Amino acid sequence: MSELRKDPIVHRWVIMAPERATRPIEVTDLPHLVSSMDDPFAEGRESTTTAELLAFRSADSPANGPGWDVRVLPNKYPALSRDTSLVESTDSLYQSLSGVGAHEVIVECPQNEGNISRLSDENICKILVAYRDRIVDLKRDPQLAHATIFKNCGAQAGASIYHAHSQLLATPYVPSLIEEELAGAKAYQAANGRDIFDDIIARELADGRRVVVDTPQFLAFCTYASRFTYETWIVPRQPESHYEQITAEAIRELASVLKSVLHRLEVALNDPPYNYVLHTAPLQQAYLPHYRWHFEIYPRLTRVAGYEWGSGCYINEVLPEQAAQRLREVSEV
Amino acid sequence: MSELRKDPIVHRWVIMAPERATRPIEVTDLPHLVSSMDDPFAEGRESTTTAELLAFRSADSPANGPGWDVRVLPNKYPALSRDTSLVESTDSLYQSLSGVGAHEVIVECPQNEGNISRLSDENICKILVAYRDRIVDLKRDPQLAHATIFKNCGAQAGASIYHAHSQLLATPYVPSLIEEELAGAKAYQAANGRDIFDDIIARELADGRRVVVDTPQFLAFCTYASRFTYETWIVPRQPESHYEQITAEAIRELASVLKSVLHRLEVALNDPPYNYVLHTAPLQQAYLPHYRWHFEIYPRLTRVAGYEWGSGCYINEVLPEQAAQRLREVSEV
Repeated sequence: MSELRKDPIVHRWVIMAPERATRPIEVTDLPHLVSSMDDPFAEGRESTTTAELLAFRSADSPANGPGWDVRVLPNKYPALSRDTSLVESTDSLYQSLSGVGAHEVIVECPQNEGNISRLSDENICKILVAYRDRIVDLKRDPQLAHATIFKNCGAQAGASIYHAHSQLLATPYVPSLIEEELAGAKAYQAANGRDIFDDIIARELADGRRVVVDTPQFLAFCTYASRFTYETWIVPRQPESHYEQITAEAIRELASVLKSVLHRLEVALNDPPYNYVLHTAPLQQAYLPHYRWHFEIYPRLTRVAGYEWGSGCYINEVLPEQAAQRLREVSEV
Repeated sequence: MSELRKDPIVHRWVIMAPERATRPIEVTDLPHLVSSMDDPFAEGRESTTTAELLAFRSADSPANGPGWDVRVLPNKYPALSRDTSLVESTDSLYQSLSGVGAHEVIVECPQNEGNISRLSDENICKILVAYRDRIVDLKRDPQLAHATIFKNCGAQAGASIYHAHSQLLATPYVPSLIEEELAGAKAYQAANGRDIFDDIIARELADGRRVVVDTPQFLAFCTYASRFTYETWIVPRQPESHYEQITAEAIRELASVLKSVLHRLEVALNDPPYNYVLHTAPLQQAYLPHYRWHFEIYPRLTRVAGYEWGSGCYINEVLPEQAAQRLREVSEV
């Protein structure tokens, strides 16, 4: 079983998951994973996966068979599990929790396709609905404090399988970076009497140099202090702390913005490996007026090295103004 | 010129260094860099490097010629520079600083050797003295707030050159992770009336399972909540916040502990890529009784992916107790 440990000095959580070291890795030395006949997530191979938690499938198709567009499965090699109860072990120095949580895989299309930007708008909508529905379900478990949804695309971004998929990790703690965002946004509101996400959006629209895609409900832009080259965020224009509150109409618009941004990154950077992460408010908290869910997209072009790991600070060799300009110049799909 | 930008939400510094994108990369696709006839740091090629800031060389050898053991050079592609003055640009949302600082390379031996564990004890002492002497020199510049010394060994750890070298990055800010350590150590002292580093050392010695090397002045151990597989810290047993205060006697002992730990990692993990980072107190602060300088060594065995980047938390597939046992089992050099 996994064990969660908290760093005694900086209070950062680490999931100790020794069982995961046994999982097979499809390809590790290639800069790009490639499509494969031996695709564990392909339609028709449902009998070899774990049993689905959720699937968007044709009305007459039975569970765990063909006929689906998006499927959500328990991770075969989970870092955390709900088959255990939350036990805390704390003394004045070291703190640990039992490995309670959920680790799921969102299989994003039935065919052997690695890049969701090449899927139909309708398919991408179903992915975004699956993210929402899984969070809504997990929220009912009071042991779970937060759900992080993330995608690793490409071997250099940590993917071990080519077929497009994301992961959901629900944890009994709120991750450090989310805690920092919540605290920073709250402090800004207290100091300035305004919402920091409103102020960032207003500034970015007025300035314009870092804007990538601009729609009625969303703004996609390269952030002022990007950690990663070509890092791009997608932020809703209206306050909304919890992603699970998103409407069907907003999902349609978000799907087209996400597709456009990923397409632009793929053209501008020649199919880069990338990660994206959904940042959303803690599951068990009510609406937080100062916080806003958003997607953060990190192309993985340069190796992160000793300075970044050791300092928590970053060196970025492309100004976000230049990155955004390049992304704006790419033609739409 | 570089520009330093602070994230408006989580207050993390990023060095925007567009000029660095022009530097050549020796090897990028190999899992291990290899020794090379075309070694830019080899003895005899001093005329092609930047002019040395410091060198430990034989008494009769002129600067910037052969006859040295350790040389310190300005980085040819610096992320920061001292040839500019500190200009701050701040509004209520975005904060930036001009790219003031120092970026230096410590060339750690004259021959084409990539692993400092294979150097003589005397050579390793000179490296550790060079770290100290450069910090002492940079401390005199009141514009510099902190010096981070770090090593990238192996292409997967971010190195672009095989020849053993470290880097020093002196910044006008104190890095986020150092700020978090300072705050965490201070809060622990306030809450418990004891030094957290004393308590960690006492606990690790009493427990024993995570200890790697144990000498009169230093303890090397795999940390309780290691971020990375086989992460190992070397911590002085007595309080000392600033590395630049280290004595010559302690350097001799530190050199043998560092060599032993790196040798054990290399044998146990088959020459892994790794980073190490010296964490030390801010340059312009007086002695901090609650803080302690230390080395953090991060083997780079698994790819860090979306969860870690997006959450600030980590998944580690090897318990530190198992890692330390394996490292203890390796025979000494």
